[in-house]
Amino acid sequence: MKKILILNGPNLNLLGVREKGIYGNQSFEEYFETLKSQYTKIDLTYFQDNNEGAIIDKLHEVGFAYTGIVLNAGAYTHTSIAIADAIAAITTPVVEIHISNVHQREEFRHHSYLSKNCKGVILGFGLDSYRLAIESFL
Amino acid sequence: MKKILILNGPNLNLLGVREKGIYGNQSFEEYFETLKSQYTKIDLTYFQDNNEGAIIDKLHEVGFAYTGIVLNAGAYTHTSIAIADAIAAITTPVVEIHISNVHQREEFRHHSYLSKNCKGVILGFGLDSYRLAIESFL
Amino acid sequence: MKKILILNGPNLNLLGVREKGIYGNQSFEEYFETLKSQYTKIDLTYFQDNNEGAIIDKLHEVGFAYTGIVLNAGAYTHTSIAIADAIAAITTPVVEIHISNVHQREEFRHHSYLSKNCKGVILGFGLDSYRLAIESFL
Amino acid sequence: MKKILILNGPNLNLLGVREKGIYGNQSFEEYFETLKSQYTKIDLTYFQDNNEGAIIDKLHEVGFAYTGIVLNAGAYTHTSIAIADAIAAITTPVVEIHISNVHQREEFRHHSYLSKNCKGVILGFGLDSYRLAIESFL
Amino acid sequence: MKKILILNGPNLNLLGVREKGIYGNQSFEEYFETLKSQYTKIDLTYFQDNNEGAIIDKLHEVGFAYTGIVLNAGAYTHTSIAIADAIAAITTPVVEIHISNVHQREEFRHHSYLSKNCKGVILGFGLDSYRLAIESFL
Amino acid sequence: MKKILILNGPNLNLLGVREKGIYGNQSFEEYFETLKSQYTKIDLTYFQDNNEGAIIDKLHEVGFAYTGIVLNAGAYTHTSIAIADAIAAITTPVVEIHISNVHQREEFRHHSYLSKNCKGVILGFGLDSYRLAIESFL
Amino acid sequence: MKKILILNGPNLNLLGVREKGIYGNQSFEEYFETLKSQYTKIDLTYFQDNNEGAIIDKLHEVGFAYTGIVLNAGAYTHTSIAIADAIAAITTPVVEIHISNVHQREEFRHHSYLSKNCKGVILGFGLDSYRLAIESFL
Amino acid sequence: MKKILILNGPNLNLLGVREKGIYGNQSFEEYFETLKSQYTKIDLTYFQDNNEGAIIDKLHEVGFAYTGIVLNAGAYTHTSIAIADAIAAITTPVVEIHISNVHQREEFRHHSYLSKNCKGVILGFGLDSYRLAIESFL
Amino acid sequence: MKKILILNGPNLNLLGVREKGIYGNQSFEEYFETLKSQYTKIDLTYFQDNNEGAIIDKLHEVGFAYTGIVLNAGAYTHTSIAIADAIAAITTPVVEIHISNVHQREEFRHHSYLSKNCKGVILGFGLDSYRLAIESFL
Amino acid sequence: MKKILILNGPNLNLLGVREKGIYGNQSFEEYFETLKSQYTKIDLTYFQDNNEGAIIDKLHEVGFAYTGIVLNAGAYTHTSIAIADAIAAITTPVVEIHISNVHQREEFRHHSYLSKNCKGVILGFGLDSYRLAIESFL
Amino acid sequence: MKKILILNGPNLNLLGVREKGIYGNQSFEEYFETLKSQYTKIDLTYFQDNNEGAIIDKLHEVGFAYTGIVLNAGAYTHTSIAIADAIAAITTPVVEIHISNVHQREEFRHHSYLSKNCKGVILGFGLDSYRLAIESFL
Amino acid sequence: MKKILILNGPNLNLLGVREKGIYGNQSFEEYFETLKSQYTKIDLTYFQDNNEGAIIDKLHEVGFAYTGIVLNAGAYTHTSIAIADAIAAITTPVVEIHISNVHQREEFRHHSYLSKNCKGVILGFGLDSYRLAIESFL
Repeated sequence: MKKILILNGPNLNLLGVREKGIYGNQSFEEYFETLKSQYTKIDLTYFQDNNEGAIIDKLHEVGFAYTGIVLNAGAYTHTSIAIADAIAAITTPVVEIHISNVHQREEFRHHSYLSKNCKGVILGFGLDSYRLAIESFL
Repeated sequence: MKKILILNGPNLNLLGVREKGIYGNQSFEEYFETLKSQYTKIDLTYFQDNNEGAIIDKLHEVGFAYTGIVLNAGAYTHTSIAIADAIAAITTPVVEIHISNVHQREEFRHHSYLSKNCKGVILGFGLDSYRLAIESFL
Repeated sequence: MKKILILNGPNLNLLGVREKGIYGNQSFEEYFETLKSQYTKIDLTYFQDNNEGAIIDKLHEVGFAYTGIVLNAGAYTHTSIAIADAIAAITTPVVEIHISNVHQREEFRHHSYLSKNCKGVILGFGLDSYRLAIESFL
Repeated sequence: MKKILILNGPNLNLLGVREKGIYGNQSFEEYFETLKSQYTKIDLTYFQDNNEGAIIDKLHEVGFAYTGIVLNAGAYTHTSIAIADAIAAITTPVVEIHISNVHQREEFRHHSYLSKNCKGVILGFGLDSYRLAIESFL
Repeated sequence: MKKILILNGPNLNLLGVREKGIYGNQSFEEYFETLKSQYTKIDLTYFQDNNEGAIIDKLHEVGFAYTGIVLNAGAYTHTSIAIADAIAAITTPVVEIHISNVHQREEFRHHSYLSKNCKGVILGFGLDSYRLAIESFL
Repeated sequence: MKKILILNGPNLNLLGVREKGIYGNQSFEEYFETLKSQYTKIDLTYFQDNNEGAIIDKLHEVGFAYTGIVLNAGAYTHTSIAIADAIAAITTPVVEIHISNVHQREEFRHHSYLSKNCKGVILGFGLDSYRLAIESFL
Repeated sequence: MKKILILNGPNLNLLGVREKGIYGNQSFEEYFETLKSQYTKIDLTYFQDNNEGAIIDKLHEVGFAYTGIVLNAGAYTHTSIAIADAIAAITTPVVEIHISNVHQREEFRHHSYLSKNCKGVILGFGLDSYRLAIESFL
Repeated sequence: MKKILILNGPNLNLLGVREKGIYGNQSFEEYFETLKSQYTKIDLTYFQDNNEGAIIDKLHEVGFAYTGIVLNAGAYTHTSIAIADAIAAITTPVVEIHISNVHQREEFRHHSYLSKNCKGVILGFGLDSYRLAIESFL
Repeated sequence: MKKILILNGPNLNLLGVREKGIYGNQSFEEYFETLKSQYTKIDLTYFQDNNEGAIIDKLHEVGFAYTGIVLNAGAYTHTSIAIADAIAAITTPVVEIHISNVHQREEFRHHSYLSKNCKGVILGFGLDSYRLAIESFL
Repeated sequence: MKKILILNGPNLNLLGVREKGIYGNQSFEEYFETLKSQYTKIDLTYFQDNNEGAIIDKLHEVGFAYTGIVLNAGAYTHTSIAIADAIAAITTPVVEIHISNVHQREEFRHHSYLSKNCKGVILGFGLDSYRLAIESFL
Repeated sequence: MKKILILNGPNLNLLGVREKGIYGNQSFEEYFETLKSQYTKIDLTYFQDNNEGAIIDKLHEVGFAYTGIVLNAGAYTHTSIAIADAIAAITTPVVEIHISNVHQREEFRHHSYLSKNCKGVILGFGLDSYRLAIESFL
Repeated sequence: MKKILILNGPNLNLLGVREKGIYGNQSFEEYFETLKSQYTKIDLTYFQDNNEGAIIDKLHEVGFAYTGIVLNAGAYTHTSIAIADAIAAITTPVVEIHISNVHQREEFRHHSYLSKNCKGVILGFGLDSYRLAIESFL
């Protein structure tokens, strides 16, 4: 059975609360339940942390055993070489995703340290970006 | 019935011939047949041209009537404000895709004039990027 | 009799359709009829193409015979050294115009490759920019 | 009756004396008389000062009462955010003009702090730039 | 008795008239009366000029005798090394203030030539920025 | 009763120990007691952590319930988009403060990712910056 | 028999007409006849187009069959990643040439997107650059 | 007895597992045992954490008591001003080391925020960089 | 008899008062008397103003009649294109001087808008820079 | 009889020894003998030095007497304004050549200080670049 | 017996004379004697020259025969691509060293053209940097 | 008796031969004789070399014994940190001079590595720059 981790970075725990104009008003937990019911044949897990180090720890933990990781690193996307190094160090392929179209936002959100080390990038489809990333592992 | 256009830019007619290390060795026509057989309920069409103006003409032609456009603008991604303007001018949503992970290639391929005006971006999944883009319209 | 060409670049065929907030909602053809009726003593012609090469071809064709060219090169203004070279190569003076005030838009629209080779620049007056350019030849 | 102010910035008092290769050899006062005789139905006035603050004061003075301001801010075009702010603060529309084609001169003359806040920009037509700006208010 | 000067730069005479979205609609004179009634034990004076040189003159005039200067240099904040030099040359401490949060506005408003030579900086609190600056001298 | 949190970032636990030339030699705990005795009508609390994620967690925790947050994010000011996002996500207004005048220090301390999302900024007044920030909420 | 294509880009049809100070006053057709009479043992052909797409099409057409291509891409040298990609995609070696010494001209002519993908570069020898490029294939 | 801490940053727990081409295939624990047996007269300790804040905490903890710190901050070298500040705040000298020659890797690895505040820098000698750093304290 | 003007810009009225470490503690008036007694055969005059416009006015006033102008434009050296234009517009040669060695000070003092239009530049010799400039006219 | 000097800069004495992947494995002396036997009607000489000054001396020595100079300045191409000045100072035309295609190598090898002052540039043809340069003088 | 060359670049002959605040006041010759007495089992030699070319010559001379080279290229570190090329061309490994911590000095000393081609870099340990470099070859 | 060295860098041996438009047509030797006859009370010597290292050697040789050095380092002004270091290392004050006004020439001639370490800079006065520099030592 395929094992896929959805790994969310800083502030994504506020989804549904925060800046609804950008992220919509569904909480991630609700959305995650929908996803699980859609992909019953995959062992789908979810982890969120506001801490850069905790994200690295998680990547190390699952990164030699899982089929794939769907990573929305939030703001760390643009500042964390350490997470990028972690992605390069593990063997599980990682797909970078973003809910919003980051290219419509501030200049500093146009650059990602992670993309180079990821299998692929999917962005701008709202929460549907997560589903498309899972599709890419099937 | 949903109408989706796959629109390919310069040099993509050489797919399967050119730089196989990067693009694989299947021709796009072959791949397109596979796609059509997968999505029989969609009216899927395909157009390729090496000319910036021809791509703009095509966007104008279908851009007020179709459900979606899957655009791989090739090198024009990085140089064409005119195509970006065409995307903004039409009402059909456009998904920007790339076969390769452009962030693993030259610096000048990391910037896209188009992304800002597109619904979303999908890159790095090989030919599977096309399929994921179609999925995003379903 | 003075001969003046109005030469429009990419996406300007959509005038009146596209991004009305920026360009207004009159089609260029309608506006052109008004202009012709205002300047009955000038042989006023109009040409539009979405293709960079076609614009160069047109500049070569009329550029040794006409009194003046009113050029709205659209997005090619910011990317085409080839059109700038064509302007330098011909003997007919060219006036660069823009409908919108490009300095209120994206950073990349603030630079024009063409300006240096043109007789003058007029921008920001809506469609009236065309009339002012014609005035400059009288 | 329409009231239009022509407002000239630093060194333009030397017009006809200074760098004739660039600005021609007619003094502005002579040219202004010609303009007034052409536009007898407009209340046309003229003011010049070498001082940034004096230009701001003048913009404040007429900027809530006049139909239009034709502004040649000379070198302050490229350095004065304070004048740009004054233009934004008043309600009378301002047209930025330049006698020479600034894009054929030094790099630092290619950028204008004022353009963004002006109704439009006209440059490169010699003294005729002033006339075209007046035309834009008719 | 402590002597504090409030020194306002270009366009701040229009306060309450100009761009109300940014600066509110109270005139500075009205606000100054309120301030004086709040701080009756301080000799509080106020000066405004649109001229860079006049601001320098004022800094020289009071800069060896007063307790403090509250300086809102407006647009000169971003362009005037001469005012920065004047602040460094005098012995009275200067507090730089801004009504709006300049970091929410254009890029060129994010840099101040003055900050380095000031005792401190206060920005973004509307007219209350003036009061906080006075507090800093108590 | 108003609730205000003082939130200190990395290395500020060393205050009074570290680089006394820049930060003075009073520990923050001592200073905090003084502040509390000055503002007895405010529920004033204090939190410090060297961890980016812990600061985000704290902002989330109090950011929908408190009157205001006084944030000295230390070095994270210049590197953390994640904290900037947290400030934007919560509804409690945040005032950014710095003890030293960061504009007198290294170039990389002149830029703050946080300022844009804060209510205002106060810097350079030593520990008094905290008091002025509290004043801004009264 | 060796087959060599001389491929000229935009505005080179005006050779002998345009900017004689830079390009001399011989038309390319005349020069081409001289070349052919010099190299009778080579199958030498010539193609010119003002269109980026047409140049790409031609490179595809001959690029798997010819001995060599002598490419003067004119202004597209500095703007076309699409032509650079076409050169990389074909198997025929391409020599980039320029008539003028581009390093004596505008800054933007100093960078070529094509050079990296070409066998070599020859520039500054006037029309003789073409002959030297042919020599390089012998 | 001299006390020296070896402090390793993010992803260095994977040493011997990760990117062997760059870092070799010995685990750091094994290497540390060798080091300890070589330097029996030094109290040598070792700490690793993937968290920026944890590294700062450790620097604070030992930074006023130890003889020296050998710091391999991994990717935080290039992004953490907070760690740089911690090094400046403590009194124990820190030697920055890198296993690989960072100047042979990506551009963003060529800049270190830490170097300025360290006693010295040693890089490129593989694991031997640690030994050389210890030598520098003898 | 040769006529030479010494023209001083902003803050130079404070000479002998201000930042003595950089400028020494002699007032300019005292120094000017010494100079006049040294050069009795020259009609030596002196003018200082803190206002950019006043300096331009003075340049216009004497700039067609004097033998030479010794200009220390102070901070306007680095920001005033308008003064640079005034120098270019007049016929009297101008020598740019600085008391301090500006290249030992802040980065922004290393660039001068004026130098290009001046006959020569002399800097770093303290007040003796004025004397050397006068020498250059003899 | 035509006199042509081949002038080689630093490290080219190692040709055939050094980095064979880039430069091939023939020594320059061997290649030079071949060249001489090909061009028996030219007085062909050869000079190599690792010293910037020695190259300048040589350019001065032959630069008013020879027909042409074929210059491979090696790394000095990218750093030596002094050699560029020497080329401009002499009357013998200089052709700049490179063995490798410098545009396929590090960024800093893409810029040449010399090109602007040379008659032309030839690069990327291996040792054949020397022959083509000689051809350009015939 | 291992052969190691210490190779010093420009101005290092003044060691002990020059800028003692930075380099200490021991001459290199004295220090070299100490080193030799420490490493009696190594054939340790020393060479210094102020000339870029002489350093290249020395690298060529010993670079295929010695065990290692300890290179302090002084200012050439930051400007000499030619020395960097020489290091790449030879087979003896080179260790780049600096006496001072260059990252605490001017910006232009933070970049080294040599590092990429060296085995490793050691900097900031005073004269002890030389000893540590020798250690790296043992 | 005062001892002053005039030290000329690369290509200045060609003075009077080279680019007369910029440097005039008097040889430096002729000019030097004139200078010596003007300053009979000074021990005036002259040295020129095209080699960076030779200039450094000369600075070391006289730099602890002479009254002053007049240095025209030619193109090394813009590229040599090593000469700048030599100036800083010696105790004799150095005056940097240039014959031409370097600010009227290429951008890369506007920056000098030497200025910061010199007593002063004199440029643009033709050969008279040398005399003014000597004056500065009197």
